[in-house]
Amino acid sequence: MSRIAYVNGRYLPHKRASVHIEDRGFQFADAAYEVIAARGGTLIDEDPHLQRLHRSLRELKLAPPMSDAALKTIMREVLRRNIVDHGFLYLQISRGSAMRDFAFPKHAKPTVVMTARRHRGPAAKHIEEGVGVITIADIRWARPDIKAVALLPNALGRQQAKEAGAYEAWQVDRDGNVTEGTSSNAWIVTASGEVVTRQADTSILNGITRMGLIGLLEDEGLTFVERPFSVAEAKAAREAFLTSTTNFVLPVVSIDGTPIGNGYPGSIVRKLRLVYDAYAAAQGEAR
Amino acid sequence: MSRIAYVNGRYLPHKRASVHIEDRGFQFADAAYEVIAARGGTLIDEDPHLQRLHRSLRELKLAPPMSDAALKTIMREVLRRNIVDHGFLYLQISRGSAMRDFAFPKHAKPTVVMTARRHRGPAAKHIEEGVGVITIADIRWARPDIKAVALLPNALGRQQAKEAGAYEAWQVDRDGNVTEGTSSNAWIVTASGEVVTRQADTSILNGITRMGLIGLLEDEGLTFVERPFSVAEAKAAREAFLTSTTNFVLPVVSIDGTPIGNGYPGSIVRKLRLVYDAYAAAQGEAR
Repeated sequence: MSRIAYVNGRYLPHKRASVHIEDRGFQFADAAYEVIAARGGTLIDEDPHLQRLHRSLRELKLAPPMSDAALKTIMREVLRRNIVDHGFLYLQISRGSAMRDFAFPKHAKPTVVMTARRHRGPAAKHIEEGVGVITIADIRWARPDIKAVALLPNALGRQQAKEAGAYEAWQVDRDGNVTEGTSSNAWIVTASGEVVTRQADTSILNGITRMGLIGLLEDEGLTFVERPFSVAEAKAAREAFLTSTTNFVLPVVSIDGTPIGNGYPGSIVRKLRLVYDAYAAAQGEAR
Repeated sequence: MSRIAYVNGRYLPHKRASVHIEDRGFQFADAAYEVIAARGGTLIDEDPHLQRLHRSLRELKLAPPMSDAALKTIMREVLRRNIVDHGFLYLQISRGSAMRDFAFPKHAKPTVVMTARRHRGPAAKHIEEGVGVITIADIRWARPDIKAVALLPNALGRQQAKEAGAYEAWQVDRDGNVTEGTSSNAWIVTASGEVVTRQADTSILNGITRMGLIGLLEDEGLTFVERPFSVAEAKAAREAFLTSTTNFVLPVVSIDGTPIGNGYPGSIVRKLRLVYDAYAAAQGEAR
């Protein structure tokens, strides 16, 4: 099957899908994006993703290029043309193409790109055995809460993790507290069984999976706390895990080589993975 | 005249020059760039620009896609095909196009893009009367010394300046000291006549015009100091100015609306503009 991409009103063979060299997404990282998981051909938490997209666009003073209804129609068409049942959709909106100038162009039309591909989620081994993370300094700009493509530090951090044999890198602020992974949110479970993740202020991206999971914790009878936690606290935690659109809930069993708990996925994270999977599957079946 | 752009081995009509939607420059800001001024058809300080490009590529762990000799040949050809006498050349190298993944692709070929256009430098009015700047918080990532395209905060800052009727925005660190403009270095002249600009550590991009001008100061009998200066010190300075590839040396006559000195370009900045113009013109004539 050859993949199809949407670019500015056209459905194109993936290989030929391109943007202009003076697209502000290419020259200035002047673009917002979303990655939305698909299960059973349905986009999971589509509305929260679109709400976050609108927030990013507002923060970048970028007018939405079309209505949500139009966006949704194209999103479905991209999924359909790529025959994506389980997988994800990628959506990027840049400020458009214009003669290079740092200030916003007066008349540029936003560039809209969408792709979709099949993806089964993380490997069974990672789900069953958990993954390792390293910690690195958070060197990103001051507004990672905006889902923009200024992802160079994230890419450098992820590469560092890969070279260290780790799955993800947890970024650490000047106070020694974990902010989040390069493309996932970071969680721990304390000795007393509290589920902890950092508050969604301007220092992290408020993950849609993060928000979805928070909504499920109470039903599981779990105590939830939003607050910063240090690397030392994380290493001494009973359990640790990460959440993201492509990983859902994934156990973290070592930080910088230090085993978390007994070095195996804990009971709470194993439960939460199942709970979140069921939550996503229910949306897939409800269509 | 229709413009010509170089993209990965081909000289294309500017309008049709494009990169793939999964180019890492478009999706991750994973690219370095340079802007080099041309005078009399000659690239000013070409070697320092290429040295800085190599430094950026090294910091991004991106192997140079070709030799400097090959780069220079293409740079000249792009200037020639665009009939650029006075103007500048834009050069961008990304990590290439690959299936979206934060970590580096194993086999991607770097994307090389070059454009050139005629440009006469800043308006005569700006040179004669000077320009105003505003100050804004420096919200960039921790490595602005790497000339990468993660320029979203710079674009937002420049837009803010434009909306405030200013020419540039000077970014201010947590200690209240000026780092640099969104695409220029910041300078002041103190009451005692010292020429001051911030030291080129990881907090600023070490401008090629900045370095060129530093080399000319001693011959002018000026005392030069590299150190941080605060917004308050800048507002109380005798003179202020900015340097960049496209502006050379440009007087700054107000900061956040506060006039600098008597509100007109001072004698030192006027002299330095002439000195730097002569330095660039000499390179143009020497070819």
